[in-house]
Amino acid sequence: MTEVNEGAVDLVEVIRGDRVESVHRGHIVVCDGAGEIVEAWGDPSAVIYPRSACKMVQALPLLESGAGAHLTSAQLALASASHEGAAVHVAGVNAWLRDLAMSEQNLRCGTHMPYSDDARADLIRAGDRPCQLHNNCSGKHAGFLALSKHLGAGPEYVEPDHPVQLAVRRTFEEVTGMDSPGYGIDGCSAPNFATRLDAFGRAMGLFAGARDGGGLRQDAMVRLTRAMGAEPMLVAGEGRACTDLMHAMGGRVAVKTGAEAVFIAIIPELNRGIALKIVDGTTRAAEAVIAAMLVRLGVLDAGAPVAKRLTHGPITNCRDKVTGHYNVRLR
Amino acid sequence: MTEVNEGAVDLVEVIRGDRVESVHRGHIVVCDGAGEIVEAWGDPSAVIYPRSACKMVQALPLLESGAGAHLTSAQLALASASHEGAAVHVAGVNAWLRDLAMSEQNLRCGTHMPYSDDARADLIRAGDRPCQLHNNCSGKHAGFLALSKHLGAGPEYVEPDHPVQLAVRRTFEEVTGMDSPGYGIDGCSAPNFATRLDAFGRAMGLFAGARDGGGLRQDAMVRLTRAMGAEPMLVAGEGRACTDLMHAMGGRVAVKTGAEAVFIAIIPELNRGIALKIVDGTTRAAEAVIAAMLVRLGVLDAGAPVAKRLTHGPITNCRDKVTGHYNVRLR
Repeated sequence: MTEVNEGAVDLVEVIRGDRVESVHRGHIVVCDGAGEIVEAWGDPSAVIYPRSACKMVQALPLLESGAGAHLTSAQLALASASHEGAAVHVAGVNAWLRDLAMSEQNLRCGTHMPYSDDARADLIRAGDRPCQLHNNCSGKHAGFLALSKHLGAGPEYVEPDHPVQLAVRRTFEEVTGMDSPGYGIDGCSAPNFATRLDAFGRAMGLFAGARDGGGLRQDAMVRLTRAMGAEPMLVAGEGRACTDLMHAMGGRVAVKTGAEAVFIAIIPELNRGIALKIVDGTTRAAEAVIAAMLVRLGVLDAGAPVAKRLTHGPITNCRDKVTGHYNVRLR
Repeated sequence: MTEVNEGAVDLVEVIRGDRVESVHRGHIVVCDGAGEIVEAWGDPSAVIYPRSACKMVQALPLLESGAGAHLTSAQLALASASHEGAAVHVAGVNAWLRDLAMSEQNLRCGTHMPYSDDARADLIRAGDRPCQLHNNCSGKHAGFLALSKHLGAGPEYVEPDHPVQLAVRRTFEEVTGMDSPGYGIDGCSAPNFATRLDAFGRAMGLFAGARDGGGLRQDAMVRLTRAMGAEPMLVAGEGRACTDLMHAMGGRVAVKTGAEAVFIAIIPELNRGIALKIVDGTTRAAEAVIAAMLVRLGVLDAGAPVAKRLTHGPITNCRDKVTGHYNVRLR
């Protein structure tokens, strides 16, 4: 296993005028439906925290346990989401908690201002503060609570030795095919298990290769992948990369961002999963590279507005003048 | 001259749990009062856009022309500022424009939402939109307008062939000691001249070495450096790195951030200027490294809250749990 910065390659140039102003390095891996590496840039053995890009893995025990048998696509999309805390997300998670005979107070994700401009403005105008429902991870936590209730476990479901997190770790290690070398605590207080990029790419390949009727795990993978593609707005929000990319691909591909510039794609029609990490943790670069990879693999139209915006820009300024653009380099 | 990413060295590790999650590379140069390199990390010949870190250079023609003879320290600090658009900044720039018998409409910086949480909330509650006074560069532009009026030049003062920008370019090339290889258009629509990091460090060294009575240029440099140190709140704002660093050093050192992770320091008491660029353009890393350099040179107390916050963290999450920290590596 190697440190995250070893063997990284230049992937994105940020151009101003006719000059390279900044550069982002990273690692990419593409795996097939059996989890085997098909193509890679940088060092696939780099160890990463997958952060929110692994939410669909964290949701597998919810389905495999039977706790999520009755859940809707909208709820599964929220469980896999890093949402912007808009009204639709807050209402969806709130209703789910009510179904569980629980409330916002049962959440352990903590509070941050919603990413949604409208939701922030609404709070400010009302003189309110955000609650835990606004947390971008509140849907994942509703899923944790649903599993916890099913297991009859205690309320502190983000503790690493809680039955929910033990189930997540076991599942994560099964789909990545390796023991996690350890965990960090995520922004939402849940443990986030480190793994190698190729192991995480393997998991994404398995999601892509999963088929209906392939057994408990494959059925769960199919349900989650379809739910994300069916509900792009619930997975992120208005104008956000995940939402716009999934819309542009007609919901046939599931994509998910993670903090510190992780990004994944699950492409069932090609039997391919993608996982990438930008070493410096910058989201603009992760977005540019995942979009470029989706174009390269032929599932995203290079002319789609979101493809052009993420892979090229242009970068504009406060008077809407073009000041530069991005170059993605996939040599 | 080399591209910005060639020869960069690892400078900042972002740690989560006990593992490196992200890494930032960059270049640093320390120059003496004559502009000679004293110490460097990475490749000092890397070509950068100095962005807003060169605002005190852009303000030199204002003083050297005589146009700024009567200006206060507050006005010179605003001319060198990337301010947060709080009431104090908006009022200061507005009053300056009135002194010039001008108004917000004469500005060519464009509009963006103010960085200040309070100012943003005030606008939202009032149902207002930001105006050009809220632009972080509005003070620099007031200075451009003052020079333009003095020169009897036309209203489009951000055009690269306008007398104001010609004066800026000439001065920039004199203090950096080299011809600029070209410019990019900045977020505020002014040209931003590319240069080598060591040439920009030379300029910062000259600012540090300037002495009262040393002639027109040195007098201008001394006035600007002192004005920034005397008015830290006007140079940035509440809780911002530049403001907190200058406060912590009692105003004896001028520091300034620039977009895409440029940072400078002017240290008259040591006869030293610092310039640095983080290759990936991430502000958290530029802030960590400038603070570590100021501690290393003995002008910032390692125990000062801002020094600990910028160089180490801790990084906390939505429930105020410590999830990680920064490591600055100055080998």
